[in-house]
Amino acid sequence: MGIDIAASFAFSVERLSDVLLQFEAAAIPEQRILDSNCTMSKAEHIARVAAQDAIGERIWLHVDGRFEVSYTAQVEVDRIVADVATLARLEPHELPAEAVQYLLDSRYCPADRFQPFVEAEFGGSHGGARVAAIRDWIAGNFTYEQVSTTHTTALDSFVERRGICRDYAHVLVTLARASAIPARYVSCYAPGVDPPDFHAVAEVFLADPSVPGGGAWQIVDATGMADPAETVKIGVGRDAADVSFMTVFGEARFEEKEVCVRRA
Amino acid sequence: MGIDIAASFAFSVERLSDVLLQFEAAAIPEQRILDSNCTMSKAEHIARVAAQDAIGERIWLHVDGRFEVSYTAQVEVDRIVADVATLARLEPHELPAEAVQYLLDSRYCPADRFQPFVEAEFGGSHGGARVAAIRDWIAGNFTYEQVSTTHTTALDSFVERRGICRDYAHVLVTLARASAIPARYVSCYAPGVDPPDFHAVAEVFLADPSVPGGGAWQIVDATGMADPAETVKIGVGRDAADVSFMTVFGEARFEEKEVCVRRA
Amino acid sequence: MGIDIAASFAFSVERLSDVLLQFEAAAIPEQRILDSNCTMSKAEHIARVAAQDAIGERIWLHVDGRFEVSYTAQVEVDRIVADVATLARLEPHELPAEAVQYLLDSRYCPADRFQPFVEAEFGGSHGGARVAAIRDWIAGNFTYEQVSTTHTTALDSFVERRGICRDYAHVLVTLARASAIPARYVSCYAPGVDPPDFHAVAEVFLADPSVPGGGAWQIVDATGMADPAETVKIGVGRDAADVSFMTVFGEARFEEKEVCVRRA
Amino acid sequence: MGIDIAASFAFSVERLSDVLLQFEAAAIPEQRILDSNCTMSKAEHIARVAAQDAIGERIWLHVDGRFEVSYTAQVEVDRIVADVATLARLEPHELPAEAVQYLLDSRYCPADRFQPFVEAEFGGSHGGARVAAIRDWIAGNFTYEQVSTTHTTALDSFVERRGICRDYAHVLVTLARASAIPARYVSCYAPGVDPPDFHAVAEVFLADPSVPGGGAWQIVDATGMADPAETVKIGVGRDAADVSFMTVFGEARFEEKEVCVRRA
Repeated sequence: MGIDIAASFAFSVERLSDVLLQFEAAAIPEQRILDSNCTMSKAEHIARVAAQDAIGERIWLHVDGRFEVSYTAQVEVDRIVADVATLARLEPHELPAEAVQYLLDSRYCPADRFQPFVEAEFGGSHGGARVAAIRDWIAGNFTYEQVSTTHTTALDSFVERRGICRDYAHVLVTLARASAIPARYVSCYAPGVDPPDFHAVAEVFLADPSVPGGGAWQIVDATGMADPAETVKIGVGRDAADVSFMTVFGEARFEEKEVCVRRA
Repeated sequence: MGIDIAASFAFSVERLSDVLLQFEAAAIPEQRILDSNCTMSKAEHIARVAAQDAIGERIWLHVDGRFEVSYTAQVEVDRIVADVATLARLEPHELPAEAVQYLLDSRYCPADRFQPFVEAEFGGSHGGARVAAIRDWIAGNFTYEQVSTTHTTALDSFVERRGICRDYAHVLVTLARASAIPARYVSCYAPGVDPPDFHAVAEVFLADPSVPGGGAWQIVDATGMADPAETVKIGVGRDAADVSFMTVFGEARFEEKEVCVRRA
Repeated sequence: MGIDIAASFAFSVERLSDVLLQFEAAAIPEQRILDSNCTMSKAEHIARVAAQDAIGERIWLHVDGRFEVSYTAQVEVDRIVADVATLARLEPHELPAEAVQYLLDSRYCPADRFQPFVEAEFGGSHGGARVAAIRDWIAGNFTYEQVSTTHTTALDSFVERRGICRDYAHVLVTLARASAIPARYVSCYAPGVDPPDFHAVAEVFLADPSVPGGGAWQIVDATGMADPAETVKIGVGRDAADVSFMTVFGEARFEEKEVCVRRA
Repeated sequence: MGIDIAASFAFSVERLSDVLLQFEAAAIPEQRILDSNCTMSKAEHIARVAAQDAIGERIWLHVDGRFEVSYTAQVEVDRIVADVATLARLEPHELPAEAVQYLLDSRYCPADRFQPFVEAEFGGSHGGARVAAIRDWIAGNFTYEQVSTTHTTALDSFVERRGICRDYAHVLVTLARASAIPARYVSCYAPGVDPPDFHAVAEVFLADPSVPGGGAWQIVDATGMADPAETVKIGVGRDAADVSFMTVFGEARFEEKEVCVRRA
């Protein structure tokens, strides 16, 4: 599936500050970058480093004043998409070392507090069937509404039963981890996101039916807006704290943002 | 420096549960395991995986009923310990990829909220001097007291100005990250910890004077109880959520614990 | 209904401190104090003031060292108990001035955050029927378990789905207020509380069928342990912060407590 | 001192909702309402009830669609203003019954958590001198900046060291209560507030030098913007939850607000 991406944004800082950006489609086997172009304002320093789990890159800026980013890309997504509900669970002791961190609590996902809830609400299902049940429960009980701030955790969203993609993903990640299923947060581009913007979904680690004893990450979007087969990953992390498209060490004034994602 | 460790603990679970343990001295260049012995109760499954940053191992149990662990080790610590206050900062854009996650917010360390405080309180110092100032500020303003629970964050401890080693380490990690200095949480054994128990300290990533452009992790203990030259690392993580000596997926009743650490 | 109460407790403070106690059966029309006896250690100052809504009394102590309280009372409860589920709601604009504060958020009851939840879960019922639905939902979804601390709010208990009488009452108060029904917290004695201890229930303000346009407070106990006809009120408040049996300005070590409540 | 007030605001609700307003200058001995005029849109029901501590009135609306309020008043303030720093403390056991609730924790003011901080930071001062020290500490350490939401507590503001009048007042109230000094939240009009808006200050209950054994409330504004002699009280409460100028049971869209306060 070919996806065309155009994204631009601008911000200003009042004094020389460190800013971390992550907004480009990741070059990984499941999605090929056919063409891409990125124009950025001048900065005192710009450095690139591999991002979390070696998916995508983070860009460090040391910058003063107004900074503009303009990015376009053509991406071919070639992801094997399974029906999550049919996938078996890997027992925790079968997990590879690198999946274990995605069982543990993170800034926005205090999963340990939700063990009684997931047992009570989803106790009858396991593995992928539980993930599907969690996804459907969120979809059925939440209202898509912009009420969250950078302080809003999955616990807040769970109580208030509303939020945006970031919050839907945090709640899904949290309830999956409380079920002892590794789950991570994925920032992405996807057609169909309304209003058009950067998007976020969850990924869960379940048994891979094609590899005995093996596991694989599967995209799950509780908002229902993104099709996993058309989703272009930017990066992954424990939650939004790890993979924000912009993290500022200091104060920045966000000035504009425009994102357009289309099927090619 | 030779260190002798003896640790034992026991817990019970009421139904078959997954439990993650991490309590053994890590086999890493800066500390040699001369001898070690670990006796554990039988479990349905026991599996070992590499722990975070490949420092130490995590042990998965699939277990029912009472479980006992008895561990002894002789460790030779051979760590180069610098005077933290004299070390320079690495600019964020100079950081290696793997250090970046330790700048970001985690479960117990909501660092972004402390940027105004660190600027106001420690604005005049940078790099290692700032870390030393933060350590001294905690030591001077906190009371060592057991008031924390598994929900207690660095924000809670900062407000209440008291806690145990876990909380001292969380506050130091948080204020270092708010200063754009990578900081991680280290579970460890150390002689001099009173009362004797598992211990926790912080590590910060600062310029390595012996490697131009390079950086190195330095142990900092705001409680003042552990000497970095005698500290035996068990594991590292973003905070206590990553490197608890016992993480239970389900309910466990902790039954006993005894830790003895001595200079050999 | 005659109720016999015997309660005793002791605590120690390390330096001269102010302590506020509230543990005696309130002398109010719905419960007559037939006999009571209270013995307390000597204190530098002891003063009594009327408690919240003029229900019961608060006792100020200015005290050092160990302090013991021993209290017995015989109380005749003569409360008109309605079937809450049958009572109509008073519209907010019909509420008397003194009930309005019990619609508003308090320390442990952040009701405004639960408006979407109560609409989604209980939207089909109103007034007393909604209160009964909330009570039954808590009873059906919560586990009675001592996990709370003085920091635990209704939001925490709602997420973790467990707690003790204090927490059950907080959640009921919170969900009632989120439904625009005034609700307050009642500390009390009641036979049948297991393990025997001070108890806490909620009260909601609903239409009084015997007084056109009037309202009355009705006891609701989501734990199901206390019968409203046998409940002896100590005091009322916005939540547990207002009507703790002991509030210390300083540090106290609680040393013993024994409560025995029986039908006469 | 004569003060002229003009305030107008408008909001919309999408379905019939209960709304509580409190925005008029309170008719109390210390401030005489010379003239006032209030124009409001039609509502299905409008009812007035006395507000907390009988200071001012709350207005209940049962309303649908857009609602507009336009209010003007001329007020003569005749308040005895003492130099807070010179006033003695009343010991808790000397407090009148109605002041006790203002020592206790409320929604936005979790005072019990700040006892170690106030002892460490302000332990050398007492009574009014401590209140003045707290006020000066806030003024010296906080930045006036709009970062708070309806969820922001004094604990959040204390950590982030910034906020608006609401947050300055919450922190002062919290630190006074942690010092065992009764403190309440006052919504008010005052000339000099910049940008012009509804304002909030704290009041503390200290010894009244003109009445042996008596106490009196004294206005303290940590923002420094309002002169107590020119402050027109709207209402008082435990914190902002009790005395918001608009509390909605449901969803409202705030549409405009204009406040102008001048010396006559």
